[in-house]
Amino acid sequence: MPKDMNTTDSIYERRESQARSYCRGMPATFTMARGSEITDDTGKTYIDFLAGCSSLNYGHNDPDMKAALIEHISNDGIAHGLDLHTNTKAAFLESFEQHILEPRGMDHRVMFTGPTGANAVEAAMKIARKVTGRTNVIAFTNGFHGVTSGALAATGNGYHRGGAGMSLNGVTRMPFDNYFPGQTDTAEFLDAMLSDKSGGIDAPAAILLETVQGEGGLNAASPEWVKRIAKLAKDHGALLIVDDVQAGCGRCGTFFSFEEMDVMPDIVTMAKSISGFGLPMAMLLVRPEYDIFGPAEHNGTFRGNTHAFVTARVAVEKFWADDSFQKELSEKSQMVHDALSDLAAMVPGAFLKGRGLMQGVDVGSGDLAGAICARAYENGLIIETSGSEDQVIKVLAPLTTPKDTLRKGFEILLAAATDILSSHKTLAAE
Amino acid sequence: MPKDMNTTDSIYERRESQARSYCRGMPATFTMARGSEITDDTGKTYIDFLAGCSSLNYGHNDPDMKAALIEHISNDGIAHGLDLHTNTKAAFLESFEQHILEPRGMDHRVMFTGPTGANAVEAAMKIARKVTGRTNVIAFTNGFHGVTSGALAATGNGYHRGGAGMSLNGVTRMPFDNYFPGQTDTAEFLDAMLSDKSGGIDAPAAILLETVQGEGGLNAASPEWVKRIAKLAKDHGALLIVDDVQAGCGRCGTFFSFEEMDVMPDIVTMAKSISGFGLPMAMLLVRPEYDIFGPAEHNGTFRGNTHAFVTARVAVEKFWADDSFQKELSEKSQMVHDALSDLAAMVPGAFLKGRGLMQGVDVGSGDLAGAICARAYENGLIIETSGSEDQVIKVLAPLTTPKDTLRKGFEILLAAATDILSSHKTLAAE
Amino acid sequence: MPKDMNTTDSIYERRESQARSYCRGMPATFTMARGSEITDDTGKTYIDFLAGCSSLNYGHNDPDMKAALIEHISNDGIAHGLDLHTNTKAAFLESFEQHILEPRGMDHRVMFTGPTGANAVEAAMKIARKVTGRTNVIAFTNGFHGVTSGALAATGNGYHRGGAGMSLNGVTRMPFDNYFPGQTDTAEFLDAMLSDKSGGIDAPAAILLETVQGEGGLNAASPEWVKRIAKLAKDHGALLIVDDVQAGCGRCGTFFSFEEMDVMPDIVTMAKSISGFGLPMAMLLVRPEYDIFGPAEHNGTFRGNTHAFVTARVAVEKFWADDSFQKELSEKSQMVHDALSDLAAMVPGAFLKGRGLMQGVDVGSGDLAGAICARAYENGLIIETSGSEDQVIKVLAPLTTPKDTLRKGFEILLAAATDILSSHKTLAAE
Amino acid sequence: MPKDMNTTDSIYERRESQARSYCRGMPATFTMARGSEITDDTGKTYIDFLAGCSSLNYGHNDPDMKAALIEHISNDGIAHGLDLHTNTKAAFLESFEQHILEPRGMDHRVMFTGPTGANAVEAAMKIARKVTGRTNVIAFTNGFHGVTSGALAATGNGYHRGGAGMSLNGVTRMPFDNYFPGQTDTAEFLDAMLSDKSGGIDAPAAILLETVQGEGGLNAASPEWVKRIAKLAKDHGALLIVDDVQAGCGRCGTFFSFEEMDVMPDIVTMAKSISGFGLPMAMLLVRPEYDIFGPAEHNGTFRGNTHAFVTARVAVEKFWADDSFQKELSEKSQMVHDALSDLAAMVPGAFLKGRGLMQGVDVGSGDLAGAICARAYENGLIIETSGSEDQVIKVLAPLTTPKDTLRKGFEILLAAATDILSSHKTLAAE
Repeated sequence: MPKDMNTTDSIYERRESQARSYCRGMPATFTMARGSEITDDTGKTYIDFLAGCSSLNYGHNDPDMKAALIEHISNDGIAHGLDLHTNTKAAFLESFEQHILEPRGMDHRVMFTGPTGANAVEAAMKIARKVTGRTNVIAFTNGFHGVTSGALAATGNGYHRGGAGMSLNGVTRMPFDNYFPGQTDTAEFLDAMLSDKSGGIDAPAAILLETVQGEGGLNAASPEWVKRIAKLAKDHGALLIVDDVQAGCGRCGTFFSFEEMDVMPDIVTMAKSISGFGLPMAMLLVRPEYDIFGPAEHNGTFRGNTHAFVTARVAVEKFWADDSFQKELSEKSQMVHDALSDLAAMVPGAFLKGRGLMQGVDVGSGDLAGAICARAYENGLIIETSGSEDQVIKVLAPLTTPKDTLRKGFEILLAAATDILSSHKTLAAE
Repeated sequence: MPKDMNTTDSIYERRESQARSYCRGMPATFTMARGSEITDDTGKTYIDFLAGCSSLNYGHNDPDMKAALIEHISNDGIAHGLDLHTNTKAAFLESFEQHILEPRGMDHRVMFTGPTGANAVEAAMKIARKVTGRTNVIAFTNGFHGVTSGALAATGNGYHRGGAGMSLNGVTRMPFDNYFPGQTDTAEFLDAMLSDKSGGIDAPAAILLETVQGEGGLNAASPEWVKRIAKLAKDHGALLIVDDVQAGCGRCGTFFSFEEMDVMPDIVTMAKSISGFGLPMAMLLVRPEYDIFGPAEHNGTFRGNTHAFVTARVAVEKFWADDSFQKELSEKSQMVHDALSDLAAMVPGAFLKGRGLMQGVDVGSGDLAGAICARAYENGLIIETSGSEDQVIKVLAPLTTPKDTLRKGFEILLAAATDILSSHKTLAAE
Repeated sequence: MPKDMNTTDSIYERRESQARSYCRGMPATFTMARGSEITDDTGKTYIDFLAGCSSLNYGHNDPDMKAALIEHISNDGIAHGLDLHTNTKAAFLESFEQHILEPRGMDHRVMFTGPTGANAVEAAMKIARKVTGRTNVIAFTNGFHGVTSGALAATGNGYHRGGAGMSLNGVTRMPFDNYFPGQTDTAEFLDAMLSDKSGGIDAPAAILLETVQGEGGLNAASPEWVKRIAKLAKDHGALLIVDDVQAGCGRCGTFFSFEEMDVMPDIVTMAKSISGFGLPMAMLLVRPEYDIFGPAEHNGTFRGNTHAFVTARVAVEKFWADDSFQKELSEKSQMVHDALSDLAAMVPGAFLKGRGLMQGVDVGSGDLAGAICARAYENGLIIETSGSEDQVIKVLAPLTTPKDTLRKGFEILLAAATDILSSHKTLAAE
Repeated sequence: MPKDMNTTDSIYERRESQARSYCRGMPATFTMARGSEITDDTGKTYIDFLAGCSSLNYGHNDPDMKAALIEHISNDGIAHGLDLHTNTKAAFLESFEQHILEPRGMDHRVMFTGPTGANAVEAAMKIARKVTGRTNVIAFTNGFHGVTSGALAATGNGYHRGGAGMSLNGVTRMPFDNYFPGQTDTAEFLDAMLSDKSGGIDAPAAILLETVQGEGGLNAASPEWVKRIAKLAKDHGALLIVDDVQAGCGRCGTFFSFEEMDVMPDIVTMAKSISGFGLPMAMLLVRPEYDIFGPAEHNGTFRGNTHAFVTARVAVEKFWADDSFQKELSEKSQMVHDALSDLAAMVPGAFLKGRGLMQGVDVGSGDLAGAICARAYENGLIIETSGSEDQVIKVLAPLTTPKDTLRKGFEILLAAATDILSSHKTLAAE
């Protein structure tokens, strides 16, 4: 059994902040990881359906990225380059231009922000405000954009908002797609509020959205809704910002989450899997006409994490140079869908959420979802919940997970569910 | 000659945001770096007196860190671990406890925040607000704490503040130490304003300061002033936050910048050189009684950059296990002081600023300082300015810079100054 | 014809601010007024269907109030008493207790604020924030609560909000009753947003509403909706504030606008007609448990306008000591309803809005509504528009208007409408 | 003895808010007032050195204003006129132009705001923000500008600020003139902070000040300082707003408090004594080029208190048509100065503050000042304290107070001081 590192004499108890979180439910000490599997210090191996919250879309320690990175370090390549030119950065930009931007007809510029998704969101909000001379950013229920003050204002989660210790300004909250199933269309709602001269919503600098809300419970916006929101942004003089930190980099089946929606965001924020290897890296894409920051007006010491540029370039070239990977994602999405359908069928009232490799099951209760994930962990599967009540079991397996491993992971998950549900029934029957 | 990568057909012009900055004045493409030297793609080598703005205190690609990192990667060590337990994190925490915290009598907890200094500052401000139930954070003229909204509110620089595109709240600005030389003591000023029931300054959640303002122009607070501010914080029920992102990790001659001041901050923010290798990593130290965030209340995908833990551990063990490194710093500080005294003597009205390995010369004009640094760059020295008018030539050489290299760097700097000053005189004489 | 006082040589052009407004469309110089009629300096008399925007519910210069006020002044009664005790204030409070509060089972305390509705609203919002320790106040689309910063944050009107010159905080906007006819119930919407842990709406200090939105276009909330909102406030720990500045003092057919809704607000704001005579006076009613301001914590020089206390007492005693006046209002409401039904029938798509003596017709276009009112003015009827597009012709006749005068006013109004509509048709036909 | 109306069975205890204040220390019920004397319901007469906090500069019930007001009411003159033209408003404006504005070379426009000083201040701040497109308003320690959110942000008093229940934005606090006697000049301080590119003070929309801080403790700015601030405002692109609500209308010896300072504010706020009779009225004067509000962009139901226009016109014509009144004020200022010098001489460390008819004595302790005022009240003198610790005994007698009454008032005051001081000494000796 793994040693519980949460005991009082552990270094974590002694010295790490109470803010630590995942390690509480998964107390093992991990030492090694490869592809979709991760091993603890007792030698126990887990299948990883969490993938660093979608930061490891290409799995742990991808061999090609690993080789390139070791070579870079061995050669005394630049580790930290501020925003100086390096051959490494140039190579990444060229790959990204060739394989990602050009094929999608995007003339966006790349801005390397501080290496966190929140930092990219902060920069995006600042750009929108500076471009429009307006303050108000429209964000949505259950949106999650980070926990620094500017981004946190846009984040819906009350627990995280409470961490601010103060009231957060500059954002108006609106209901996300399908917030009232079968009732008022929420794009119509937003349009009505913005168009009403006495609607009391200040003219927006931006509309900020995730096409699939990862932390918010795998709420997937319909293409029609996103398209309508994009039009609203344009009509009301606001920039459209798509936060693709979690849903991008292939997670939804295409490189960007919005590719098949016939919209083109003014700004796209990226982080998590953009480095390919789990290294800290974040950036935003911005239409040239809105690329209006002066030199270093938004800056940050680690805006050039050169190690990340090395692996990010390999990731682009290895997975996105042709459409084979994307096709593979399509098949795996179906596998995830089928397996989760089985899970949903086991729980009365449960239903599938999300899309692509970003799907889950709303089992109606945070306790139940938590119990299933905890049991799965015991049996060698790392998987987490999301949603406002933590009621959604969320599958974020690496996109590169071999089909066999996927199957094995789902076996563990379904067995855990069966197990928990039968004991629940027993309890209920007593 | 290095190819100018800012031409219109370069990848940077085509695709990188206008926010890029350092590369404008130093347009070379860098490819390799070792210790205090960095090489461009034409093979030209520069002495680095910028050191990633104090992110490379131990130089580029320190061989021990490099070896440890390559070994970690080769063994498929964890790259991205969220905030799960890893042997790597445990090892860093143990080293940091043993060599840094315990010898200094600090019972602080370590909180790994998103890997940017700004993120650590945001977390610190949030903690102070949550602990005190107050909003107001006192920050100082010329303070620089980052550019995300919360941290930017505390940053004095008007250019960066302008990037917000909106008005920033929750911070009251006060004059830093010695703002009025020979006149009102600014600690007395702060005390008067806070003690006056009609002073109109809301009771503070925190007082946030750098002991040496790096970006703000190498303004070094006196120990007496810092001590007095620490007392004021206590008397007025506020937390004392020392932002040691730039001044910490040995930069001022001791591990923390405040060590010889007889104060103990409630929170210390760290980033830049904490990983030792220039890898993105940030953390804060907080007294246990203020470690009140709930699990993940402040979170972030890259709060566990495991590669950085590897090198950070080596840095602690290699440089801080005994006092030899600190002694070396003392000698080098004197060298810097002497060389800069020579520089200051060349410019009428110029004077030295800063302390430790964080010294510079205020030459009275941003144009002059910029011209000298540009000439130094041409001659193989990377060095930058700081201060509200960019009037301070700032030396941030790696702490590990060999004495000969230091001397050589100063030779280039003084030659550049001589050169520029003579042409200025010629111009003035015409 | 009345002399146009907007010419360049008039004192108004020379010296009065461009902020002046009503006088632009009604340029006469008024000199005298009695009951529901007002006379200009040429001797022309107008029927007043504006009544100082509901500040003259008992008509101009009510003879009993007038006599009492002259007597008070003649006897050197106190004019300005700060918040000292005066026999005049005591008499008002006693009448108000006896005839208004006690019969309605209200144990509320009376707080005299600065003599504007906005000031009472500001005080109410401050109390709610202080009581709950929360900042967020829920306000509604098309709500109008005044133009000082705190109240303006709660006001929906974009033109007035724009006057702030800055972004306004502390308020969340929600759709008012029936904002989506036949679709999502807006009380359900509010409940969903507040109950959703990731809804992104901070826990509210108060819910602030008008039961009939006077400036917002005579939107009348249904009793069921108000009741539901009252329950939501309670469930979510927020105070219910009813802003009865315009809809109170009998305007809706009962003294308070909410009397027949089976709700009891925690705070009620009053101004406009509370003095009875059009004199500046404002106050709020607050449940004793929330009467938590310390002495003068919210203060104001004119919080004791003693002249207003004189007339306010007479108003209470004359009109509210028994139910005869209320019965009269019921009959007149019907008259207004009938007349406005005739008006609505004349304009395709037009419809009635409001309730009691606070009704109007939405004619679908601000231009049309404006043209009808302008024509009515020419023919001796003062009447104004409201609504986000100024598309609602609003009847705010004094509650005491004799039935004959009411009829005469409506004759002018309908004739004006006929006139304008026929010329519109002619124009359309050309 | 006056009946104590603060007993539990009084109407005040039953029904008036705990926010009531003056009546706590002066519990009499007042019934009548004439000139500088006020009488309670037992027939006891008090000399009034409070004068409605400078709202009754011409005394209670001035016979000429009283006659004009009774005549106006008797003739059914307009009581409430929104912002319609009335003969009454025109007459006031013409008098004000002729006797106040023109002789002082002021081309300012008059804007009638809601009838409170706070409302005029809110309007002034809004104008400055709208004109400049900036948010930040500079206000000073111990400034008092009202308690609605916008004005309260500018008010220094912590007790009143606490009433907001939230944090207040948009204002930067600076030290008032002479805040550090003999040390840093505070105008230099402000200049340094504003001129420093990294000073962290956003470019100001306005600088807002009282030339004598009434509530703040009778701090009188020197003409040189005000002039310097006026220049700073101009240099930094900010409007200069002088809040003359308490210090204006002759209180400082001239109509405006700033007349002899060689400055011309961009905006002047007026309230309190502007109506002459203690009736609610407020307005601001604004340079024509900054008179940029659109019609009703800042509005308010009682912005045309026509009764107040009647008495305000009489006040202007009676007291300001020639310089005789101003000369009288000069003599009385000297009387006040002499009497207060005697008072100051009685208390070790006490000193005079203020200027004109707005002088007082800082006795070093709120308890002592309060005790003296309480004793004076018992003996028939109404007088109050001010300052951040209530340590200043403040004389605000009506400007029209006959010299004999002034003398009598001071006799009571000095006797009260003698009395209290001797008992203090006795206590101290025990």
